[in-house]
Amino acid sequence: MNRLHLYRQQFPALENKTYFNYGGQGPMPQVAMDAITQAQVHIQEIGPFGTEVGSWIDEETKAIKVAIAAELHVPPATITITENVTVGCNIAMWGIDWNPGDHLLLTDCEHPGIVAIAQEIGRRFAVEVTICPLMATLNQGDPVAVIDQHLRSNTRLLVLSHILWNTGQVLPLDKISKLCIDNQTRLLVDAAQSVGSLPLNLTELEVDFYAFTGHKWLCGPGGVGGLYVRPEVRDSLKPTFIGWRSILTDSQGQPVDWHSDGKRYEVATSNYPLYAGLKQAIAIHQQWGTAEERYQQICNHSEYLWRRLGALPNIIPLRTSPPESGLVSFQLTQKTPQAHRQLVEFLQSRKIFTRTIADPSCVRACVHYFTLELEIDQLIEGIEEWLVVSG
Amino acid sequence: MNRLHLYRQQFPALENKTYFNYGGQGPMPQVAMDAITQAQVHIQEIGPFGTEVGSWIDEETKAIKVAIAAELHVPPATITITENVTVGCNIAMWGIDWNPGDHLLLTDCEHPGIVAIAQEIGRRFAVEVTICPLMATLNQGDPVAVIDQHLRSNTRLLVLSHILWNTGQVLPLDKISKLCIDNQTRLLVDAAQSVGSLPLNLTELEVDFYAFTGHKWLCGPGGVGGLYVRPEVRDSLKPTFIGWRSILTDSQGQPVDWHSDGKRYEVATSNYPLYAGLKQAIAIHQQWGTAEERYQQICNHSEYLWRRLGALPNIIPLRTSPPESGLVSFQLTQKTPQAHRQLVEFLQSRKIFTRTIADPSCVRACVHYFTLELEIDQLIEGIEEWLVVSG
Repeated sequence: MNRLHLYRQQFPALENKTYFNYGGQGPMPQVAMDAITQAQVHIQEIGPFGTEVGSWIDEETKAIKVAIAAELHVPPATITITENVTVGCNIAMWGIDWNPGDHLLLTDCEHPGIVAIAQEIGRRFAVEVTICPLMATLNQGDPVAVIDQHLRSNTRLLVLSHILWNTGQVLPLDKISKLCIDNQTRLLVDAAQSVGSLPLNLTELEVDFYAFTGHKWLCGPGGVGGLYVRPEVRDSLKPTFIGWRSILTDSQGQPVDWHSDGKRYEVATSNYPLYAGLKQAIAIHQQWGTAEERYQQICNHSEYLWRRLGALPNIIPLRTSPPESGLVSFQLTQKTPQAHRQLVEFLQSRKIFTRTIADPSCVRACVHYFTLELEIDQLIEGIEEWLVVSG
Repeated sequence: MNRLHLYRQQFPALENKTYFNYGGQGPMPQVAMDAITQAQVHIQEIGPFGTEVGSWIDEETKAIKVAIAAELHVPPATITITENVTVGCNIAMWGIDWNPGDHLLLTDCEHPGIVAIAQEIGRRFAVEVTICPLMATLNQGDPVAVIDQHLRSNTRLLVLSHILWNTGQVLPLDKISKLCIDNQTRLLVDAAQSVGSLPLNLTELEVDFYAFTGHKWLCGPGGVGGLYVRPEVRDSLKPTFIGWRSILTDSQGQPVDWHSDGKRYEVATSNYPLYAGLKQAIAIHQQWGTAEERYQQICNHSEYLWRRLGALPNIIPLRTSPPESGLVSFQLTQKTPQAHRQLVEFLQSRKIFTRTIADPSCVRACVHYFTLELEIDQLIEGIEEWLVVSG
């Protein structure tokens, strides 16, 4: 058994299926699950509430911020722990001091939850929300030029994903962030698909807000994510959802100020054992290889999948060139949601996990650095089988 | 071994200490911890992402809402699951369409995190925030009359705790809610200390918003709480932090409306295994006895503790009559924060868990329905010892 097969034995979820839903949720390594269970027991042993537990929580919270900050190449003090990527987006979007007539720019590839936040902010503060069309730049054209055309003098915030969750396109954040700085527009990045899959250096990228989750490409537990806020913009981003974790209090317990670091956007009690789980998951990836090495392997796999899909009859990969991420989306020639759903259900019946996407209607299969070529072959065989069955 | 001793063996945290911090966090029953671990394994077995996991999450979410709704005597559709009580308060406080000049009324016994939310809302929307003095009504006077005096024609929201976390006073919610209805003021109740300790019928009480947590008196895991929103006021309370769980989407994945029930205030991915843990914790309490029986036992214990404290030299219980809740707060005659901290630390060194409160400066010891008289005796002995040691 080679190194990769041994490595994969650490992930129980991979034992009984062929898995391509990393963009939905990553499989947890056993050590991460054990760390959660052990932390839960430890809290009961020393608490569950008291000074010793309080110190333990402080240490675990610091440790997970250090681990995350190392992945993003930023100082730990810039990290806020959140329940998920969407909470991080909410913190950034509600924390801006909106004025009537301000402009908020989204792309046409953002997750529905993010679109809904923008719409509600538009309604509450009389902010104009518009959409710039990036989906059409997957294979031709320049997303930076499209964004440049849609930025206005009153655009206070641009919201986009580093990797588009539907098509897998990787946006050139360095150039986009320069555009935003020149336009005095804040930039919020939905990093749901990029943290844990792309090598990242947010300090160099100069993004303002970068919201992520631990439960997708990092393979941590559901319920822990985070938000990076660039130190230079922290004082202008006001906390919205607030609690005892956000504030400094005086001797009477009265709030006197926000915490000076990312804690100011944290609210109240979380399930701290989950932090121990995410820390273990991150450690496993780092032990396997550098972020660059992992990304290279992801690209090797997605190119192989893309090539094999392209060779199938009646299957059209969305990309006309090899993917730049682990998300590989493709359509059936009839392009109907119903046909895509039927294919996904057929594959599911063969224990091959993929998903449909609504816009553009397609099937998405994700590969991670530890995906096997054999798994990709099984997916291709499954699709071939379905093409025969469905006539 | 009697029934209670056997029962307590289900809570590992109670084995190695004498515990009085139920108001901080309750000890988890072993079955609740096991349910979390098993749910985590189950998700890996059937997912972690796919249609089968999705159905399982739907069922678990429905089940925990049914369990919570039974405790509160409300329909399950009125329940929003949140990460903690403070998130529930944030949802209610930020969801009101504030206008400049509106008035928000708090009491002087609210948790610092809630005070901080009110202050930030005051700043953002030019809302006037004032405080009504309820602390002084612990032993004399009428909190309802004080609130009545402080309500104004422009008071949009009153925020108070059902059980005051510092003094343990139980506020007469039925009368307060009538005052609010008459004044067209919305009522948000911080139920951190009441859910799991008081028998509750929110339908009869007619409160608008009731925010609670599962990790204190219900003895569930940290990281799961909820918010009850009265159906009649739901449409006027707008979602603030928003995500895919809040919304209905069309065939293109575009948001078209809020969910019609409590889901509209939920955001995105949570750690769903925790729901299974809280469900087990609630089931254990219900198996032990009715909410009324549990509350009666809590009062029996707190009266016993209060009497024994009152008989000690240099110790002054805050209450001059037996407590109405499981929170029993007391002061040393010198009344200094330093002396209170030293006493708590001394007790901690004897594995007796209590905590200090900043305002009024005091020590707080909580008793649950499964507290032993022997434990109360140990606490009293610990205090007696400290009184000798500290001279």
